[in-house]
Amino acid sequence: MALLVGNAIVGQSGGPTSAINATLSGVIKGAHHSGAIKKLYGMQNGIEGFLNEEILDLTYLFGDEKSLSILETTPASALGSCRKKLPPCVDDSEIYNRISEIFKKYDIRYFFYIGGNDSMDTVKKLDEYFRDNEYKIRIVGVPKTIDNDLVLTDHTPGFGSAAKFIATTIKEIACDCAVYKLKAVTIVEMMGRDAGWLTAASGLPEYYTGFGADLIYLPEIFFDDDRFIEDVKAKLEKQPNVVVAVSEGVRYENGRYVGEGSQSGAVDAFGHKYLAGTAKNLEHLVKAKIGCKVRSVELNLPQRCSAHSHSKTDIDESVMIGAEAINQAVLGKSGVMVAFQRNEGEYGVSITCVPASQVANKVRLVPKEFINSEGNGITEECIKYLSPLILGERALVYENGMPVHLKLR
Amino acid sequence: MALLVGNAIVGQSGGPTSAINATLSGVIKGAHHSGAIKKLYGMQNGIEGFLNEEILDLTYLFGDEKSLSILETTPASALGSCRKKLPPCVDDSEIYNRISEIFKKYDIRYFFYIGGNDSMDTVKKLDEYFRDNEYKIRIVGVPKTIDNDLVLTDHTPGFGSAAKFIATTIKEIACDCAVYKLKAVTIVEMMGRDAGWLTAASGLPEYYTGFGADLIYLPEIFFDDDRFIEDVKAKLEKQPNVVVAVSEGVRYENGRYVGEGSQSGAVDAFGHKYLAGTAKNLEHLVKAKIGCKVRSVELNLPQRCSAHSHSKTDIDESVMIGAEAINQAVLGKSGVMVAFQRNEGEYGVSITCVPASQVANKVRLVPKEFINSEGNGITEECIKYLSPLILGERALVYENGMPVHLKLR
Repeated sequence: MALLVGNAIVGQSGGPTSAINATLSGVIKGAHHSGAIKKLYGMQNGIEGFLNEEILDLTYLFGDEKSLSILETTPASALGSCRKKLPPCVDDSEIYNRISEIFKKYDIRYFFYIGGNDSMDTVKKLDEYFRDNEYKIRIVGVPKTIDNDLVLTDHTPGFGSAAKFIATTIKEIACDCAVYKLKAVTIVEMMGRDAGWLTAASGLPEYYTGFGADLIYLPEIFFDDDRFIEDVKAKLEKQPNVVVAVSEGVRYENGRYVGEGSQSGAVDAFGHKYLAGTAKNLEHLVKAKIGCKVRSVELNLPQRCSAHSHSKTDIDESVMIGAEAINQAVLGKSGVMVAFQRNEGEYGVSITCVPASQVANKVRLVPKEFINSEGNGITEECIKYLSPLILGERALVYENGMPVHLKLR
Repeated sequence: MALLVGNAIVGQSGGPTSAINATLSGVIKGAHHSGAIKKLYGMQNGIEGFLNEEILDLTYLFGDEKSLSILETTPASALGSCRKKLPPCVDDSEIYNRISEIFKKYDIRYFFYIGGNDSMDTVKKLDEYFRDNEYKIRIVGVPKTIDNDLVLTDHTPGFGSAAKFIATTIKEIACDCAVYKLKAVTIVEMMGRDAGWLTAASGLPEYYTGFGADLIYLPEIFFDDDRFIEDVKAKLEKQPNVVVAVSEGVRYENGRYVGEGSQSGAVDAFGHKYLAGTAKNLEHLVKAKIGCKVRSVELNLPQRCSAHSHSKTDIDESVMIGAEAINQAVLGKSGVMVAFQRNEGEYGVSITCVPASQVANKVRLVPKEFINSEGNGITEECIKYLSPLILGERALVYENGMPVHLKLR
């Protein structure tokens, strides 16, 4: 295949992570050394900003190892993000003409989109549109999501750092909860609307140190109030402090989220329905049914932005997959997502290309064999899968007592 | 004064912090090198465990630098904690007789209590009881609280690490919130029922990096819903994303906590009053009055147990004040709390002794000159006070991707 020489553009889409900028750094490094890409542009706020021609020239970062190293542990999408999905081409050819125009104006021959399953839908649609177009361009998706719920990849960049933050924080919370002798229940809520990968990571500290989450509830298993209360009571008989990890996405068999409450009717001072959250509702349930001291903690945004507590494995792999996206595009790939394949034996990953169309809009759940038979914990197989993903720490640069982050210009 | 030779005991009381075990390590190091203390005991769960003779011999840690180094960044009270306050001696002499008995049985001549203002009440009462007793013992308090609200000390051990966690997390959350162009408000709630020190620390990242909390509300200033909404609206006119830091303890002029809601009446599915929390209630207020995207984050327990994000200054000072408590006791001090006095000029602290009776049950608020005239931010004087307390990071020992903690035996 002939070498396609021209400029490239990269964008970030969907919810931010602690490693999404590591992937951006990898794309910058890959472009710099590609031998095919002259200039690398960044679209601001993903495809949405691109359509308004909000474009940065990132070429100034080629070879700037110091800035790139800081970028790699800067949390949240440095280029900004969006939630926009492209319409099918048949519904709105105007938008595709506009995209085409901008590609030509900037001589863009490579398009990289870092995101989740919605972003892979964008990759798929753009590739389909340009595949038989006279204007030659290659479109490659790069995975990212703390939720780890993309299909056809062993895991997703960003997940390892979020999982490490959760494992560390659950361990610290377990230390905190152990200081009193009073019977007490602490319920910690993790992100994950459909898939329980992040919540599963709360099982790591208990397995390795005996200090962590005693009960774990994932959205893959229907939640049952009575069974939950029995689980907690059984633990309280053996130990004074019980730490419960629960996913925001746990649902009752009737489809209602636990975060909505087991009954409706709670309203705030403005008459609006209270969506108190999963852990908060379970706090009320334990108070009502058991009556001991109980509190709830929602880990919330820090799960996806606590880059100070990143996994080096995750950051390194995120850089690597960004650079490999460039290599694969230069080699001729388009309409694909680069993906991790876990090596046999000692932990390591190879990077493969999978069709973006097969990733788009799909969700990978935690498999049954990773969840214990009681539905309130994870198995050793799950531990084995998760463990290598949270390993390693990079030395961060601090200024004024806070980690230094890179701001693109 | 004659050298008092015998054994010592140390206890931890009140809410845990990320540095309370650094102080314990300092006490162990000080005892080891005191020339007066033969054995160092630890009481489990503070004075409560002491009364049940739940006592560990910590002498095995003398000179074990490796374990002590890990202890120094182990979060939460390694000895366990309690919330018990001693009754006045006149009300219950039996309890004092029991204490006396245990002191004699173990030949305890030094008593160190690491805690907040309630613990200083214990130090004061014990000192008063034993001051003229024929059994010679010295009672010394060592400060600890993330709330930084003890009087007669420049700051408290534990505060710097909590403040650093808050500054780092607010900076990361501000990065996260900046990725979308949509108008959005993020309200972050910090601990601090009476004093706003922790919430004030959220002002550090904005000052140093331009990325942080845009509005800050402390409990020292009465909260006003209308003024708050005006503040947020004014910020939203200038920027798409607004980050608000608010203390859990903010109150309306009528004395009602914002966390209780501006009106009462919200009940959960069990008919109990909903204490949704300060940030959650403000989230509902913004939704009702402004209508833009809004979310709330309660930083919760990780503020006091995220030892992975400690301040080296705080950890080092906490060790130092623990060791100095021993020195002062050996020199003859009793009924005192060791305290930090900030040096003039370049940052540094000296350690002084202050009467425990003057610290007991008192609260130090954030002074007026640290709060801006609008009551929605902090002043440069406050920044100057806070800045040195969050400086520095120790390299931590990790195993299986998680920080290693010490468990006492």
